[in-house]
Amino acid sequence: METLQTERISSAFQILLGDRFTGQLDVRKEHGSGFSYHTCMPPDWVAFPRSTEEVAAIVAICSTYQLPIIPFGAGTSIEGHILAVNGGVCVDLRLMNQVLEVDTANMCATVQAGVTRNQLDDVLEGSGFFFPIGPGVNATLGGMASTRASGTNAVRYGTMKDNVLSLTAVLPSGQVIKTASKARKSSSGYDLTRLLIGSEGTLGIITELTIKLHSYPEAIYAAICSFPEVEAAVNTAIKTIQNGIAIAKIELLDALLMRAVNRFSKLDYPEKPTLLLEFHGSPAEIEGQISKVQAIARAFGGDDFCWEKDEVARLRLWRARTDAAPSAQAMVPGSKIMSTDVCVPISRLAKCIVDTQTDIAETGLFAPILGHVGDGNFHLSIPLDPTDPSQFERAKALNERLVQRALALEGTCSGEHGIGVGKLAYMSQEHGEAVEVMRAIKTAIDPANLMNPGKLLPPEKK
Amino acid sequence: METLQTERISSAFQILLGDRFTGQLDVRKEHGSGFSYHTCMPPDWVAFPRSTEEVAAIVAICSTYQLPIIPFGAGTSIEGHILAVNGGVCVDLRLMNQVLEVDTANMCATVQAGVTRNQLDDVLEGSGFFFPIGPGVNATLGGMASTRASGTNAVRYGTMKDNVLSLTAVLPSGQVIKTASKARKSSSGYDLTRLLIGSEGTLGIITELTIKLHSYPEAIYAAICSFPEVEAAVNTAIKTIQNGIAIAKIELLDALLMRAVNRFSKLDYPEKPTLLLEFHGSPAEIEGQISKVQAIARAFGGDDFCWEKDEVARLRLWRARTDAAPSAQAMVPGSKIMSTDVCVPISRLAKCIVDTQTDIAETGLFAPILGHVGDGNFHLSIPLDPTDPSQFERAKALNERLVQRALALEGTCSGEHGIGVGKLAYMSQEHGEAVEVMRAIKTAIDPANLMNPGKLLPPEKK
Repeated sequence: METLQTERISSAFQILLGDRFTGQLDVRKEHGSGFSYHTCMPPDWVAFPRSTEEVAAIVAICSTYQLPIIPFGAGTSIEGHILAVNGGVCVDLRLMNQVLEVDTANMCATVQAGVTRNQLDDVLEGSGFFFPIGPGVNATLGGMASTRASGTNAVRYGTMKDNVLSLTAVLPSGQVIKTASKARKSSSGYDLTRLLIGSEGTLGIITELTIKLHSYPEAIYAAICSFPEVEAAVNTAIKTIQNGIAIAKIELLDALLMRAVNRFSKLDYPEKPTLLLEFHGSPAEIEGQISKVQAIARAFGGDDFCWEKDEVARLRLWRARTDAAPSAQAMVPGSKIMSTDVCVPISRLAKCIVDTQTDIAETGLFAPILGHVGDGNFHLSIPLDPTDPSQFERAKALNERLVQRALALEGTCSGEHGIGVGKLAYMSQEHGEAVEVMRAIKTAIDPANLMNPGKLLPPEKK
Repeated sequence: METLQTERISSAFQILLGDRFTGQLDVRKEHGSGFSYHTCMPPDWVAFPRSTEEVAAIVAICSTYQLPIIPFGAGTSIEGHILAVNGGVCVDLRLMNQVLEVDTANMCATVQAGVTRNQLDDVLEGSGFFFPIGPGVNATLGGMASTRASGTNAVRYGTMKDNVLSLTAVLPSGQVIKTASKARKSSSGYDLTRLLIGSEGTLGIITELTIKLHSYPEAIYAAICSFPEVEAAVNTAIKTIQNGIAIAKIELLDALLMRAVNRFSKLDYPEKPTLLLEFHGSPAEIEGQISKVQAIARAFGGDDFCWEKDEVARLRLWRARTDAAPSAQAMVPGSKIMSTDVCVPISRLAKCIVDTQTDIAETGLFAPILGHVGDGNFHLSIPLDPTDPSQFERAKALNERLVQRALALEGTCSGEHGIGVGKLAYMSQEHGEAVEVMRAIKTAIDPANLMNPGKLLPPEKK
């Protein structure tokens, strides 16, 4: 019986997708873990659709056979979003990688969900426009929408929720919906665009996105500034935001991380808490902003800015940031990185970071801090030696305390990585009865719980 | 039986609210129409709660007796959002008018839903911060969230969806939820904040809002510029947006409206298509922006800007805009205004406006155009003589054609006024199957359909 059912399923998919459907173990394993410490849980099959229509057909088959459906972008999830906790079909969108339209007149682009951000950058090169949302990895746009991703530019340009005009999605019912138009605003109906953004594939599969483009700035300057204490660096970031300075990036790297970066990339930055900053605008605007931020930094004991106008020097300066994760990883040979992700109201950020540093010191772990401090969001990048399980236990406990600290400071358990399975335990504490509202929405749209089951919503209390 | 039931209901409410609950006809009538052409449909009762807890208790009583619940802010709805189409209890939030906290360190404020925007402006005066969202009337913040309102500053600062951090709401179940924290971003769970914004009271009653504050600009300059043709004015706006100039306001008034304004306010502006502009930033930034926009305007045949730096002169210049609605109304003595509200992708705006002007000319109606043209959003303000029903019929038909024109140009039937009952007919055409998803969400959260029934969602097809 079991086998007959399996054969029927395979046959239905093979008719639809041919060799773009597989149950091979190596492919299944590649699709079972993401960039995370979570144990691999491979799906039963992997499907590679080429169009929204094929995705709808896949969903129809899964619905017939009550198979879980796990949407898959670039597999860069950090919180176990793609683990096949109940088996099922992983829907890998990599073949849906067409940039369908770059509409400069309306400052938007329409892409299939499998387009990666590097690919989009390449397409936009020379157009005079760019897409500002960039997590630290080459994620797909569909994945970035699904986790409400952000990154270094969010302080000025917002997150995915602010930069998507419209989505096309296949719902568990098999319905294909388009959530909005290219109009820049609308008061027509519920905001299904924002409902799907951050829903982690639990309500449907995003197949196309119309995203906002921004004019490439007339000029971009970057600056780096060292501080005697991490608190001084964070307070500089806080004051910059509170003064309404429209800075494009303001990133913290702590002294540990600067040491790791110097070693990894053979650089010689001061091994002190450091802010990396970027300014977008006309040269006059930027120089005004730089002088204001420099004055704030100086008042907190920061060094004079080292700043760069030309692109080569700017990218060299940002090396410290782009190499942060591999640098941390290189400090513990053979390690895998655990990345934490809390976000607190900006006024609480200095306390949260300082208390976390004290906590880290007591664990004996190497756990450098990296922060999108303009948003109140920061990460620990903890390289863990897989041969020493006690490190993992200590890191898990550290992350648990970190989330509790952030929640106590009226923050959130995830600034940009999402819930997946990794943060399920905090949902009720953070959202209270609102979790039941989320569950009601989930049940209304996906009554059979086929869409990425076991993610985002904690198990129901009995 | 009927009377006994009514007595029980009255008694339950009077125990809860005392004389803050009434069934008086004059009060009911005041709550039955809003600022619109829709026929007054008064509720059976009006309740005036003072707290979220009282709102929850009202909802519990309504649930017991299966009474419709209509949230009411300042009653400035244009699309009949507050009509009691099935009777029930109007929940007037005017007594919930406390500004609970101005948190400048986190650049946010928490207000009760009945706080009006003028009241908030007064509280923020001198704080160095402001709240940018301003519809043309003194609406409440709760009402503005419910309709996803915007206004003249949206082109730079976004709409309500972009400027609310968190909401407290009472749901039909009686649950009180808080949708988010003061953290500037989060990837934790479904975006219930954005789901409630624009939901027009159909999912719950918003009782408190935490809103983003913005730093008051270092300088504000305003400018006015006349054009030979409306198309030239619109193209100037389009080009300004496409060039990524961060203008704060860019408003179109057509020649008809300029004539009305001159007459009403005894001004002597050229009676030509006109852009009113406002720039926020440092003087150097603003002067850079002005010279760019001036160059664009000149290329389209616009006059030289008349521009003003000081506040008194600036406010005088904006008189034309603030007096627009009463000016239009004064052109037809004793009239009531019908206001339309479409939004199209910016590249389609010139065509939409030019075609609409041709259409208006054929109707014989006085229907001046007023536009938030930086967003692709514009209104006709049509003064209608109540003694001439044919005017109303012609205006309705004009509005119908206008919406069809906007939808054909891939726009939306409402940029900022919402659906209410006035735009129900266009929901399926604009959203297709997505309407069924909205309906599923509505049913999940409000299974008895007590929350503002008959609004936003069109009647189900049998």
